Amino acid sequence: MANIKEIARISGVSVTTVSRVLNNHPYVSDDKRNAVLNTIEQLNYRRNMNAVHLITGRTKSVAVIMPLIRIYYFSIIMEGLAQEALLAQYRLVLCQTNYRPEEELKVLEMLRNKEIDGVVIVSTSLKPEVIEEYTAYGPIVTCQNSGESRFSSVYIEHYAAFRHGLQYLADKGYRSIGYCDGRKHGSSSSIRQSAFRDFHRESGLPLHEEWMIFDCLNEEHGAALLHRLSAMEERPEAIIVAGDHVAAALMIEAGKQGIRIPEDLAVIGFDNQPIGKLLGLTTIDNKLFEMGAAAFQTIHEQIHGDGGSQPVHRKLDYELIERSSV
Amino acid sequence: MANIKEIARISGVSVTTVSRVLNNHPYVSDDKRNAVLNTIEQLNYRRNMNAVHLITGRTKSVAVIMPLIRIYYFSIIMEGLAQEALLAQYRLVLCQTNYRPEEELKVLEMLRNKEIDGVVIVSTSLKPEVIEEYTAYGPIVTCQNSGESRFSSVYIEHYAAFRHGLQYLADKGYRSIGYCDGRKHGSSSSIRQSAFRDFHRESGLPLHEEWMIFDCLNEEHGAALLHRLSAMEERPEAIIVAGDHVAAALMIEAGKQGIRIPEDLAVIGFDNQPIGKLLGLTTIDNKLFEMGAAAFQTIHEQIHGDGGSQPVHRKLDYELIERSSV
Repeated sequence: MANIKEIARISGVSVTTVSRVLNNHPYVSDDKRNAVLNTIEQLNYRRNMNAVHLITGRTKSVAVIMPLIRIYYFSIIMEGLAQEALLAQYRLVLCQTNYRPEEELKVLEMLRNKEIDGVVIVSTSLKPEVIEEYTAYGPIVTCQNSGESRFSSVYIEHYAAFRHGLQYLADKGYRSIGYCDGRKHGSSSSIRQSAFRDFHRESGLPLHEEWMIFDCLNEEHGAALLHRLSAMEERPEAIIVAGDHVAAALMIEAGKQGIRIPEDLAVIGFDNQPIGKLLGLTTIDNKLFEMGAAAFQTIHEQIHGDGGSQPVHRKLDYELIERSSV
Repeated sequence: MANIKEIARISGVSVTTVSRVLNNHPYVSDDKRNAVLNTIEQLNYRRNMNAVHLITGRTKSVAVIMPLIRIYYFSIIMEGLAQEALLAQYRLVLCQTNYRPEEELKVLEMLRNKEIDGVVIVSTSLKPEVIEEYTAYGPIVTCQNSGESRFSSVYIEHYAAFRHGLQYLADKGYRSIGYCDGRKHGSSSSIRQSAFRDFHRESGLPLHEEWMIFDCLNEEHGAALLHRLSAMEERPEAIIVAGDHVAAALMIEAGKQGIRIPEDLAVIGFDNQPIGKLLGLTTIDNKLFEMGAAAFQTIHEQIHGDGGSQPVHRKLDYELIERSSV
C-alpha cells in the first residue's frame, strides 16, 4: 500500500483517486488520470493485484471442488468450466480433493476469507446443510441436483436418465438387466440405485442383488466386470454401466473371450465418451461439457447479479444415443 | 484494512501487531496476542486473505498453463501436480489457454502482479526468450526440456524415447516404419520428427514422407489413420503413434477391418494409457503423473528456497512397456 500512497503523493491526488485509476473507474477527471498514469510510468510501478483485490473486493477467481481430474466425467466438466472462464476472463482455482471433507471445507473457507468470488462444486462428500452455511459469504453452484437448497445447481436428472436407459432395454425385449456403478454411496449413484429398484418393482422384471455391482471406476474394473458376469450361474442379458470407459473395457474383454455384444450381452453406457463411439456403444449422453459451461455461466451471473443471492436451479437435458451394443 | 485498524484500536495495539497475530508471527507478546484474539472473537472478524497476501507477499497459489485439460497427456500431469499441491497446501490456478499466446502471457503477468507465487508451464506456444523475461518476478517450471534456459524444467528426453521405440521396431525385424503425431509444429513433436529422420538416415531404412502423419489428436483421428494407411499403395509394416488413445482407436478400427495387429501392422504407442493396456498395446511410458508431481515439487522448492533463483533441470526416465502389438 505504501506504493499507492507514494503515487498519490507524487501525483498530487488522493489514494482513492489512484485506486480508481488502477481499476478503470469512470469517475476520475482526465487531468488526474493522466497525472497518475504519468507517475506510474515514471516509477515503473506494477500494481500488486492483492491490493487491487483488497480495494475492489473482487478477485476474478472461482474455486472448483473436484474429486479427481483424470476421471473422464470430471475432466470434461472442467473443460466446459475452463472455456467459459476464459471467455469471462476469470481464473479457476482447481481444488482436487479426493472427496476428503476437510479439504472441501478449506475451499469453502476461501470464500469466507474473500480469496475467491465463488465456488463450483462438481462433486462432494459434504452434506447440503454444511454447504448452505457458506452461502452467506458468496455464490455456490453444484453440478448435482440440490433440490430446494440455498445454493444453486446445474444438473441432469440422473433418475430419469437412468430409467430411460432401463426402459429402452426392456422395450428391446431384455428381461434380465444388470447394473454397474462407481462409488456405492455417492449422491448420483444412490439416485441411480433407486431408479434401478423402482424400475424393477414397477415393471415386474426379476431383480437379482448380485446383478448390482459397485466400485467399477476404471478400465481394469471394466475388464474384471466381464469375468464376474461370466462366472455367474445366471447372468443378465443386458447391463447398464455408469461410465463409458468401464463399458468399453467390458466390451473389449468380451471380444477377447468370444462373448458377442449384443447377442450374448447387451450394454448401455453413460457419458458419451469417444472410446464408446468407436466401439459402437449405445450410451446416455449427460452433456458434461455443457454442464461445466452452464455451471460457470451461473456462478458468473450470481457474482455480478444485483438480484441478491437467490439460488438458481438449471436442469439440462440428457440424450440416449443409439448405436449397436443393444 | 479498515477492519484491521478497528481491531488494533479496540485491542489497544498497533496495526502491525494485528497483522503479526493474523500471520502467526513469533514476535508478539502473549498479552498483546490475547488482546487481539479476544477482539477478533468479539467482532467475529474473518481475515480478508487478500490483506494477508499483501502483507506476507505470498499467495500459496501456483498457476498452471495447460492447453487443454481433456487430453490424457495433460490431465495426468495435472493430477500429479494437484496431488503434490494438496500435500503442500498450495492451490493451483488452472489456466486452459488453447495455446493462445495472449492468454499465456496473461498468466505470466499474474506472476509479475504478485497474484501467484510461481508458474508451471505444461505446454506452451511462447518462445523461451519471452518466458525468460518473467523469471525476474518468480520461479517458472516447464514440463519440456528447456535446455540452458533461465527457467527450470522437468522433462523426459523425447528424442531418446522415440529413438528407443524405433530401434525396438527395427530389432524386431520391421523394415518400413510410419510415424503419427499430434501438432506438427509443437516443441515435443519437432523433436520426435528429428528423431525419426535421424534414425532413418543412420539405419539406412527407407523413409517415405507420406508415412509421417500429423494432426492426429483424438480417437476419430486414430480410426481415420487406419483407413489412410489401408489406402496407401505401399504401407509401412509398423507405426509409432504419439498418444495411446490414438493408437488404441487405430487398433480397434483395424479389428473391424480384419487387419491383424501385429501381423499386418505393428503398433507402438506413447503415454501408457489404461485403454492401451487393455488392448495389449506396446507403449513408451513417459511417466506423466511423476512429471506433474516433480514439477510441483520443483516450483515449491524454488518458492521456498533461499538459494536464489538458479534454474533446475530434472530429467525423468521413460520406460518401454512390451505387450503384444509388436
